Amino acid sequence: MEELKRILVSETPEHIGETVKLCGWVSIRRDHGKLIFIELRDRSGKVQVVILPDHPEAALAAKEVRSEYAIEVTGLVKARPGKAENAEQATGSVEIEATSLQIISQPIEEPPIDVSNPELSLNLDTLLNHRTLTLRNDKVHSIFSLYALLLEAYAAACRKRGFLEVKTPKIVSAATEGGANFFKIQYFDREAFLAQSPQFYKQAGVSAFERVFEIGTVFRAEPHFTTRHVNEYTGLDAEMGFIGNFEDVMAELEGIMMEIVAVIGERGQTDLARYGAATPPVVAIPRIRLADAVEILKREYGKETEGEDIDSEGERMISEYVAKTYGSDFIFLTHYPTAIRPFYSMPNADDPKYTDTFDLLFRGIEIASGGQRIHEYQVLVDTIKKRGMDPEAFKDYLDIFKYGTPPHGGWGLGSERIIQKLLGLGSIKEAVLFPRDVKRLTP
Amino acid sequence: MEELKRILVSETPEHIGETVKLCGWVSIRRDHGKLIFIELRDRSGKVQVVILPDHPEAALAAKEVRSEYAIEVTGLVKARPGKAENAEQATGSVEIEATSLQIISQPIEEPPIDVSNPELSLNLDTLLNHRTLTLRNDKVHSIFSLYALLLEAYAAACRKRGFLEVKTPKIVSAATEGGANFFKIQYFDREAFLAQSPQFYKQAGVSAFERVFEIGTVFRAEPHFTTRHVNEYTGLDAEMGFIGNFEDVMAELEGIMMEIVAVIGERGQTDLARYGAATPPVVAIPRIRLADAVEILKREYGKETEGEDIDSEGERMISEYVAKTYGSDFIFLTHYPTAIRPFYSMPNADDPKYTDTFDLLFRGIEIASGGQRIHEYQVLVDTIKKRGMDPEAFKDYLDIFKYGTPPHGGWGLGSERIIQKLLGLGSIKEAVLFPRDVKRLTP
Repeated sequence: MEELKRILVSETPEHIGETVKLCGWVSIRRDHGKLIFIELRDRSGKVQVVILPDHPEAALAAKEVRSEYAIEVTGLVKARPGKAENAEQATGSVEIEATSLQIISQPIEEPPIDVSNPELSLNLDTLLNHRTLTLRNDKVHSIFSLYALLLEAYAAACRKRGFLEVKTPKIVSAATEGGANFFKIQYFDREAFLAQSPQFYKQAGVSAFERVFEIGTVFRAEPHFTTRHVNEYTGLDAEMGFIGNFEDVMAELEGIMMEIVAVIGERGQTDLARYGAATPPVVAIPRIRLADAVEILKREYGKETEGEDIDSEGERMISEYVAKTYGSDFIFLTHYPTAIRPFYSMPNADDPKYTDTFDLLFRGIEIASGGQRIHEYQVLVDTIKKRGMDPEAFKDYLDIFKYGTPPHGGWGLGSERIIQKLLGLGSIKEAVLFPRDVKRLTP
Repeated sequence: MEELKRILVSETPEHIGETVKLCGWVSIRRDHGKLIFIELRDRSGKVQVVILPDHPEAALAAKEVRSEYAIEVTGLVKARPGKAENAEQATGSVEIEATSLQIISQPIEEPPIDVSNPELSLNLDTLLNHRTLTLRNDKVHSIFSLYALLLEAYAAACRKRGFLEVKTPKIVSAATEGGANFFKIQYFDREAFLAQSPQFYKQAGVSAFERVFEIGTVFRAEPHFTTRHVNEYTGLDAEMGFIGNFEDVMAELEGIMMEIVAVIGERGQTDLARYGAATPPVVAIPRIRLADAVEILKREYGKETEGEDIDSEGERMISEYVAKTYGSDFIFLTHYPTAIRPFYSMPNADDPKYTDTFDLLFRGIEIASGGQRIHEYQVLVDTIKKRGMDPEAFKDYLDIFKYGTPPHGGWGLGSERIIQKLLGLGSIKEAVLFPRDVKRLTP
């Protein structure tokens, strides 16, 4: 007899009347004496398996298994009678009548968490401390299915627009963008740093390839204790040359975001449904000058703003206002003051106290930061000096601009925050597989 | 008049008889007195622009521009008479008769390297020191076009096979796989390390998602000075659960490699042609036991091998032998001795002195390492002890195996080496955008 090839749980409804082989984990086991029911989980979903006493070896093994045993089941796929159908499950129209059941791998102790619960209701530390277990939960799994979809959709949208995928170095020789945010590393006989953004290398990429994007690790040494910061995350970066102005950059990012929204809406419905979540409405993203946003916050919410930036409460409020007024879950805040933007930000031609830069907010949180960059060598040198820094320290960076670098701009987009806000997760750490924060370096 | 939208150089043959706007760099400029010819380069290719004296402003600007000026050209797309066609160029059937030419950005000094040369013929250090310039060269550009295609094809092939894309942490708390290969980092008030592989996290991923893949940075602190090592590279990792044995892992990797080869063969022809390179023949990849390879080397090449591993010369020789004998550019060397494989390697059932592991060689160089892993908690604990290590130090890792981890295996594939060997590059560093080695941390 030829050996059966394993199929996935999700494929069982296409095999009614056939004998199939399945592999997966015991999600739930119910012992009804003569009958034993097992809800079997694999990467594609869950299906009900019934073990009848007329297959004594299978029945014996089924008596023995418990939650999270990895098993192999061979059995007949049967249509469930109408009243027994489980409309909640994709495989609810069938059940597997086991003819054999083998234990592949068994837990060394009873799992401390029942991951078959639709809601885990754990505090964040417990959720993360038992990560390899809690990742098996359907709702948690959905986070990472959507996350993978986001990575795929971002890359596809960038490629469609002529961006070349690049990988830039994460070990850098100088902490040029502001030393406090950098982790120090021992690099053979000298000191080096972990890149806190691919900014400089993206700009070098523009000089050659015009348009580049990168999906890469970003390291931030900021000692934050918030629900929206981690010290290591995956950045979705892009940079584009030959732009007219920073509106071009926003337009491109807007197009990419809408394409991501469409892909998630099309292919992520099951995962979204587990959170009662919906994709953002597809409407034009409003652009509001930061100074105007400050005025709106004062007028609408009586919020006083210190200086010319808005804090995280302000970001939430302006998002709420924009959702109410324009029906958009996104908003571009534009023209940030020069004083609070990096030195390479392009000053606004009409008023150089402001920059041609933007933040993109999504449901109350900044997910991207971007803008046009200064592309002229001498202007950069002057700007670096004006900021009290030494152009000599930026030699490698300045070299990028020696040979006809076109006007350009780009963005850095945080991947995990998008998923956090899409699903309404309490903390960004739920959207990171194994998050790193000031206290957490494990598992 | 509505403003013209910029089109790409590669699109010009579709616009014969129309006025178009182009942006790009001056690759070559030839001044014939009354006529000036400019070869204009953008991200899509090159096209010939001719500036006639009857557009005095354009002619004046054309007199001024030099190599690597970024310019904007508006002009009429004209079919070139048959004898003037340039069959070497995709746009060789047309030329642009400029009606206007504007300088967008000009070099602050003459470029020290003429990147319009088909062959740069630079030594490696010069090539890398002037990276933002040398990346503009067609042949160099081709490396990174193919590299991007490789990343895309790998991800697509993995997704098609049910692998979930994950991002795992690069900052880790312990240098568990062997301290010497790890870079140390200062993580707030403690010491941490840069991950030298996503191995442990991939295995945790298997416990939940069965099949995971990652495209991520790998950090290796080895002080190598070779043409095939860098200290930071991009790994193409994958791990899969519910395998029968390590043959399943090789079969999956083989399928993915052949799919990548097909994609590159289909979409990378122009870039391959610049190197006179061909994709590897699509034939079954031979599997040869390492011990048999050692015998073959002795018999065929009189090569004496120390111990039970083969060195880089041996890898070249066995690849040559396999190419000659089986017509394959790839080879799986299998059953590496337990003593030279990591502790988590699955011992061979028949002879535990050997492991169910493999290396994948491509044109004389190891590009991947993989195999089946031990999946049972107690076996791992015993193995760690037997190797004289402390299971307590592996607590987080061991936790992965507590709750029914299925038999699994996977691989780590080096992305840059594939491109190096595909194009026959002298050093892997040519295939890295901004390579990092013991001496080089810039640009």
